[in-house]
Amino acid sequence: MAKRKPKVMRPKALPPRGFRDYFGEDLRSRAAMLDKITDIYHAYGFDPLETSAVETVEALGKFLPDVDRPNDGVFAWQDEDDSWMALRYDLTAPLARVYAQFRNDLPSPYRRYAVGPVWRNEKPGPGRFRQFYQCDADTVGTPTVAADAEICMMLSDAMEAAGIARDDYIVRVNNRKVLNGVMEAAGVLDPSDPTRFETERGIVLRAIDKLDRLGPQGVRALLGEGRKDESGDFTGGANLSGEQAEIIMGFMDARRESGGETCARLRELVSGSDSGLIGVQELETIAELSDAAGYGAERLLIDPSVVRGLGYYTGPVYEAELTFEILDEKGRKRQFGSVAGGGRYDDLVKRFTGQEVPATGISIGVDRLRAALAAKGNAETVAKGPVVVTVMDRDRMADYQAMVAELRNAGIRAEVYLGNPKNFGNQLKYADARNAPVAVIEGGDEHESGVVQIKDLALGKALAANITTNEEWKAQPAQMEIKRADLVAEVRKMIARAE
Amino acid sequence: MAKRKPKVMRPKALPPRGFRDYFGEDLRSRAAMLDKITDIYHAYGFDPLETSAVETVEALGKFLPDVDRPNDGVFAWQDEDDSWMALRYDLTAPLARVYAQFRNDLPSPYRRYAVGPVWRNEKPGPGRFRQFYQCDADTVGTPTVAADAEICMMLSDAMEAAGIARDDYIVRVNNRKVLNGVMEAAGVLDPSDPTRFETERGIVLRAIDKLDRLGPQGVRALLGEGRKDESGDFTGGANLSGEQAEIIMGFMDARRESGGETCARLRELVSGSDSGLIGVQELETIAELSDAAGYGAERLLIDPSVVRGLGYYTGPVYEAELTFEILDEKGRKRQFGSVAGGGRYDDLVKRFTGQEVPATGISIGVDRLRAALAAKGNAETVAKGPVVVTVMDRDRMADYQAMVAELRNAGIRAEVYLGNPKNFGNQLKYADARNAPVAVIEGGDEHESGVVQIKDLALGKALAANITTNEEWKAQPAQMEIKRADLVAEVRKMIARAE
Repeated sequence: MAKRKPKVMRPKALPPRGFRDYFGEDLRSRAAMLDKITDIYHAYGFDPLETSAVETVEALGKFLPDVDRPNDGVFAWQDEDDSWMALRYDLTAPLARVYAQFRNDLPSPYRRYAVGPVWRNEKPGPGRFRQFYQCDADTVGTPTVAADAEICMMLSDAMEAAGIARDDYIVRVNNRKVLNGVMEAAGVLDPSDPTRFETERGIVLRAIDKLDRLGPQGVRALLGEGRKDESGDFTGGANLSGEQAEIIMGFMDARRESGGETCARLRELVSGSDSGLIGVQELETIAELSDAAGYGAERLLIDPSVVRGLGYYTGPVYEAELTFEILDEKGRKRQFGSVAGGGRYDDLVKRFTGQEVPATGISIGVDRLRAALAAKGNAETVAKGPVVVTVMDRDRMADYQAMVAELRNAGIRAEVYLGNPKNFGNQLKYADARNAPVAVIEGGDEHESGVVQIKDLALGKALAANITTNEEWKAQPAQMEIKRADLVAEVRKMIARAE
Repeated sequence: MAKRKPKVMRPKALPPRGFRDYFGEDLRSRAAMLDKITDIYHAYGFDPLETSAVETVEALGKFLPDVDRPNDGVFAWQDEDDSWMALRYDLTAPLARVYAQFRNDLPSPYRRYAVGPVWRNEKPGPGRFRQFYQCDADTVGTPTVAADAEICMMLSDAMEAAGIARDDYIVRVNNRKVLNGVMEAAGVLDPSDPTRFETERGIVLRAIDKLDRLGPQGVRALLGEGRKDESGDFTGGANLSGEQAEIIMGFMDARRESGGETCARLRELVSGSDSGLIGVQELETIAELSDAAGYGAERLLIDPSVVRGLGYYTGPVYEAELTFEILDEKGRKRQFGSVAGGGRYDDLVKRFTGQEVPATGISIGVDRLRAALAAKGNAETVAKGPVVVTVMDRDRMADYQAMVAELRNAGIRAEVYLGNPKNFGNQLKYADARNAPVAVIEGGDEHESGVVQIKDLALGKALAANITTNEEWKAQPAQMEIKRADLVAEVRKMIARAE
């Protein structure tokens, strides 16, 4: 009996669940967008910082919104010495660690920007990835609300630099202190014992955050006994009394025409709460500074419904929302929604040093913003392929390489075909797949006569769409014979014609 | 008895062992260098690719040189479903996975470049980090040695684009097939049973790789009975006979004036080995193609002493070496050494698909190359700070913000001081720390008269170095009063003067 050949176990050609790859012009276009945004950051005096992707688990801390996730939402593992390390889940926690570590060497205040991937150990789903890009700017080491105003205005500039039209976005600003003041007024926050009513406040915050999705009625239900959704699932409520709930609802409804009017209304709602009044004062200052700088309410809006999920915010919170409509997966119109968020977090550095280091910052969700630009047709993903020099005679590779070198030296992207040259049709198919504007062809006869053929592939495609017979195809003017010495000049002309 | 206050456990403000951060102009300069290199790659027809940082452990495979390291040299952990995932240890293994996954959609051959961090679970040491940057270019899907020649010439162009002078580097090329041919000739490789003599070949390869450091005598000892180093530690040898060892030593000594002469000598050494002869033929083609393109032996050298550590190479291997001297940590002169390496790896994609997919590529060690440029003084790390607008009156923040906005709109990087403005000296110290070229000062009197003070900080510093008395300091011409309306024009003039 013949031995059975053991089955070869091959690895699957897939990334882990929830991870993805980025290709070609998509990447170049993303890089161009990020350059535009970070140029704005840089012009505002922010300096770049790149932290390591890996941090100790204790340095990262536990600030993710969904703390009931496995491993608290991070990818973590043990080092040789049994200490735990983890991939960063945002760019803010590492900044706090860096500032604490280098605080004697860094300027104070320290303005920094950062771009890079972050990782979340969450259940992957459609459009929900476990690695994604953020583009942050933060000012560390100053309590002044002018820093918050600056971040908001810079965020507005960044949106426009990225290609979002002024009518298509709004930076919305709220303040955690105002929220706390309202909680006090509603009797679910006791300044003398902040641990009381924590559960209730959690439910209230999450309810406010869902206003967009659930509407006022849904939020009202969550403030009271709870809410049954369409599928019949029941979410427990905060069990506030009618009077308590009305104060919260009034807060969400406090937005007025101008920042000044909204602040006046908020002042009424938080009356009696010191922290609340300070919060309103901060919002007023932000509105004044941004108004004075020409960032009116049509760009920068005081809006009490902004909550932001992260637990570490202590003052102003911001959000950049795209206001144009797109069709969701079910074909329904909806607003594109939030692409950036941030706020003031005064305690993150204190975790390390014990000293107060107030800070404020913003994080742009790069993939979301790219998706928005794509939805608006502004993503600049026009692929520009290289000129492809075909190989008619594989012994003359050096000649073909000389051609691409000449083209490149003239600033024209160019490559020689490196697949099996036997089938010439495959070479032209390859050139098409590369989005090549021009193919260059030089056989033995051409070589002896000192000429080459150049083929306008864009024009060829356009012609092919209108051609039905083979004769016509052959008669097309998309290919021409030129002198070898004129290669660069003629190719340049042909590319210019195509553009 | 009073209760003792519980000790607060604070996280350490440090990254995990072996990780580091990058700051400010160093990062911008690195980005500029990488742009120059990837522009070369792009001009050659290579397309960008960014894979996920995380791969399945099975997709990564085990190809690291030091396989006796814990976790095989990678950072790995288990997902919810118990499958293992890991941080990529290079950019080549993920490319193989991507090519296998998307082979029907990608052009063939597929030229791609990639830039990004990779992670190694190694013992950290001085200058030895567990996260570092690579900048790769690979051509997948073609067996032609013209692809290898292209990669070598492109590597040469990339070195020069990055700022390495033509005299300061050399791209050295060898071929694993030639090495195997020599192994055959020396009787430590049996083509009919490649598993025989594996241990001996491992020792021989490592010995050749150490030629630079140990010299011919040290290598000769390792080919024989072994070698005792200065500290008395003994490394076991391959126990080759004198005749066998001489063949290996002759191989390392085979380099001649020109690629052609070196190949002729190699042809003698591998005579009798089919694979060896094919390898020599490939080296000859690389030498011919690169000579024809003007990349002579002064830039692209056939050199039998190049080995490259990675286990997956199957044909030509390359290395970019910087030939200028630096002082090592003990103050001794030594050559800077290798900053890039690569080669042909024909079996990496086959692991996934079972089909032959020949590939070749190069990886530039970004941090090493940056260190080299810094050593040569070419790293372009001239910090350019923002203009700093000081705060004399904190109630007029809006006015100061208007100044920085005007400056920025004119293309001048500018920021307002956001620290505590009480101590004006601190503001000027801050401006110095920021490397600000100019500080702007507008107090109440100036504001009423419609003027501002601008201070040339660079000139101020230069003067300060030559000033001993306070009177002289006050009389210095580095500060001037200008009309508020002329702010942008005058600041621009002052910056231009400083440059």
